[in-house]
Amino acid sequence: MPTRQAGRAVLAAWLAASIVSAQPNLRAAVQAWVASHQRPIVTELVELLGIPNFAPDRAGIRRNAGHLRGMLERRGFAAELLETPGNPLVYGELKVEGASRTLLLYAHYDGQAVDPKRWTQPDPYVPVLRTARVDRGGRDMPLGGVTKFEDEWRLYARSASDDKSPIVALCAAMDALKAAGLAPTSNIRVILDGEEEASSPSLVPAIGRYRDRLRADLMVILDGPTHSSGRPTVVFGARGIATFDLTVFGPRTGVHSGNYGNWIPNPAQRLASLLASMKSDDGRVLVAGFYDGVAPPGREERHLLDAVPDDSGRILEAFGVAAPERAFPKLQDALQAPTLNVRGLAGAHVGPTARTIIPDSATAAMDIRLVKETRADALLEKVKAHIRAQGYHLVDGEPDDAARAAYSKLARVAVSETAINAFRTPPSDPLAGGVVAAIQRTYGAAPVQLRTLGGTVPIAPFIDALGFPAVIVPVVNFDNNQHEENENLRLGNLFDAIVTFAAILRMQV
Amino acid sequence: MPTRQAGRAVLAAWLAASIVSAQPNLRAAVQAWVASHQRPIVTELVELLGIPNFAPDRAGIRRNAGHLRGMLERRGFAAELLETPGNPLVYGELKVEGASRTLLLYAHYDGQAVDPKRWTQPDPYVPVLRTARVDRGGRDMPLGGVTKFEDEWRLYARSASDDKSPIVALCAAMDALKAAGLAPTSNIRVILDGEEEASSPSLVPAIGRYRDRLRADLMVILDGPTHSSGRPTVVFGARGIATFDLTVFGPRTGVHSGNYGNWIPNPAQRLASLLASMKSDDGRVLVAGFYDGVAPPGREERHLLDAVPDDSGRILEAFGVAAPERAFPKLQDALQAPTLNVRGLAGAHVGPTARTIIPDSATAAMDIRLVKETRADALLEKVKAHIRAQGYHLVDGEPDDAARAAYSKLARVAVSETAINAFRTPPSDPLAGGVVAAIQRTYGAAPVQLRTLGGTVPIAPFIDALGFPAVIVPVVNFDNNQHEENENLRLGNLFDAIVTFAAILRMQV
Repeated sequence: MPTRQAGRAVLAAWLAASIVSAQPNLRAAVQAWVASHQRPIVTELVELLGIPNFAPDRAGIRRNAGHLRGMLERRGFAAELLETPGNPLVYGELKVEGASRTLLLYAHYDGQAVDPKRWTQPDPYVPVLRTARVDRGGRDMPLGGVTKFEDEWRLYARSASDDKSPIVALCAAMDALKAAGLAPTSNIRVILDGEEEASSPSLVPAIGRYRDRLRADLMVILDGPTHSSGRPTVVFGARGIATFDLTVFGPRTGVHSGNYGNWIPNPAQRLASLLASMKSDDGRVLVAGFYDGVAPPGREERHLLDAVPDDSGRILEAFGVAAPERAFPKLQDALQAPTLNVRGLAGAHVGPTARTIIPDSATAAMDIRLVKETRADALLEKVKAHIRAQGYHLVDGEPDDAARAAYSKLARVAVSETAINAFRTPPSDPLAGGVVAAIQRTYGAAPVQLRTLGGTVPIAPFIDALGFPAVIVPVVNFDNNQHEENENLRLGNLFDAIVTFAAILRMQV
Repeated sequence: MPTRQAGRAVLAAWLAASIVSAQPNLRAAVQAWVASHQRPIVTELVELLGIPNFAPDRAGIRRNAGHLRGMLERRGFAAELLETPGNPLVYGELKVEGASRTLLLYAHYDGQAVDPKRWTQPDPYVPVLRTARVDRGGRDMPLGGVTKFEDEWRLYARSASDDKSPIVALCAAMDALKAAGLAPTSNIRVILDGEEEASSPSLVPAIGRYRDRLRADLMVILDGPTHSSGRPTVVFGARGIATFDLTVFGPRTGVHSGNYGNWIPNPAQRLASLLASMKSDDGRVLVAGFYDGVAPPGREERHLLDAVPDDSGRILEAFGVAAPERAFPKLQDALQAPTLNVRGLAGAHVGPTARTIIPDSATAAMDIRLVKETRADALLEKVKAHIRAQGYHLVDGEPDDAARAAYSKLARVAVSETAINAFRTPPSDPLAGGVVAAIQRTYGAAPVQLRTLGGTVPIAPFIDALGFPAVIVPVVNFDNNQHEENENLRLGNLFDAIVTFAAILRMQV
């Protein structure tokens, strides 16, 4: 391994030499390099996974950050830790001579909490290699003795997929390009978030302090699983989210359903009627103005949506559902509209502890998925207006005696978390298109292009605040058990990610 | 205290002498006797309350049964324990010479479980005397030093109200009549249930074995609180109950509300629509045929219902409810119809553990209160037919793959407990009318007459199976914390109960 200074000199020559050279067979070159460097690639990932990374574990987070800084420095990045009131952001910058644009590559190094008892390995921070998914007969393989890592093998550890492997793949892509005598075609900035699983509270505030380091022409988010087809995937947006608890109030305490049934109104029944009033049996939201601004897809959008190779039949079969909502028979169409979803229901008790009462209240935990055209505040106001139109008086906390005496229908809408709005980069954006083209050229086939994810990314406000376009390039296997026990990475996805990232580093626009 | 044999001889003379004698001032005579016997009455109750009586506590139950047998024997009853597969029934019989009818008096000696930590006294089986409700500033009074027990004082103990004090009041009423030289005007049979709080499983089976002992012309049930006005009360019936859990099934497991929202149908939303389809906003059940056979009240019923001195305003204020259901603005009218009540709601999670998913299922715990005209089986079938008419396929357990593939709307109706049908004795029944008249004559005012309780009594199947009429004569204070911590008896209710029971023992028909 060269000294850091010697490394810098070699790097400078590489960058100067190679930016303009074409590379018709980038994929073959990178794949060949990967094939002969499997062990160091996997070893680098195993070492990184060995450092505990639950966001509240400040010591573990700090060790991750220092380790990642070293990894970036070894690839020639000017790396530093950007301190925040929370966990540090790991930052790296690589200026490429002659490059006229800058990519900001985002990933995160923190992971979800672990409950080792639920894992099939003793320690989720000690990776285990298996020949297949553990629930499909995968055998443990000693990491030391392997001479060839098969694509179908899995590495089990917290953050194996979410989101440490993209970081290692990015570093390997840099190494592979360098070995091929090729430089990135863009200036590269890397930002590694240490609080993504805690909703990235430090990202937007960091812009004020580190604005200069965060300027770029396109953000590329290296996070998430590919489309379920397993094909390379580019995502142009993600729905936002707003959540609230809707509570309908009944008597002050539960009252006997025999002594007062038919007389004291039942808040669970009323909540049911209220929810029913909000959505048609077809699955269409009936709240006035809920879809305002959401146009049906135009011809190009239609084409983009229809090109997504969703295997609806397989998904429905896997979920054990006979038919989707009638309002949105196609999955990709369903994702283009905002949702109103009952994520939980509660009122008194069900099951062995049930008592024959009229409950004191009933609550629906709701989420609204937002699209670019529908902002959180506006939709929440429309929902409240709908509830009022059903005759409800809305209270803030618990209703007081005066409210109880004055209003026969009492409800509360408790917005429970900070909303995250949607983001969506137009697929016509030249740089976003450049990412698609780079992948297409490298693989000889267009990636799956998703106009929007159905889910939400906490980075959306950061994208909003930065003000330049962003795309997501997810690379890990979609069956990775993200956030759950037995999180795993399919090694073929790691190896392919190196090719995909090399293509993006070499994008031509 | 006379020996048992001497007692019997005195008793026989008493019974022979006094059955036909009128007693225009029974109330004054009994009240005077009570005033001079407060201490032995209260002491007898305190001793009985000191014997733990949770139905599964077989040793405690057995001690109660033996003690009660002795109490009945001291009043001249031929007493015995009727053994059952469960707890023994304590039985007593008093034949009255010249009496042409037989009353079967029912009470129960078991009590609800206790959680001493929640009580304001160390041991719920060691009674505590207080000058008022403990939550209204009641002070502890040493039981030993009292010379006069005030009506407003309370005795705190498990079963103080439910249901040991009526047994003690019955025994005292016998003593008072005897002291006044009066005999009961009916043959008296007493049956004391040791499993009422466990739904009286042994009562109906006991009929097969003990039919001869259980024959009577009228059952009088000595249980429950008076009308909230505190006036003497006679109840002609009680609603029945059937309970079931209604589950609507969604995807096999909860799925991400972002990734699949608008596409995978939400079972909580569907449950809400289904519940909403079952009941109008006015509170009227929309299930076809639900009210079949339930006629609006005729003129006499109207009069009976309107004579009940419900203080609706006070009840609504206490519950913090501005207005009752529009379909049944009067409480007594509400109780004459069957109900369909959502007693609990559950689906995924609400509150801090809520997750943004489409739940795998949602369940409403339901109860139906039955009236005499609506039987459990018939109403449950009507509810199922309604659900099917909304497009649901009903499954028994969990839906299997075939059902999931075939039916887009899947639900389950799990009938969770043995139903109890309603009972109702016509207010025109001569013996039931005799009880009302006896109380009216004694107090100089008609008792509150309830055509039906809203709630359910586990004794209803026993009444059904015995085949003769029954009325309930509840005597304890309605704010007695029945079934909860700090159960208590207002002593005035105990003293009045002695008068009321003496009136019934002396009823003329």
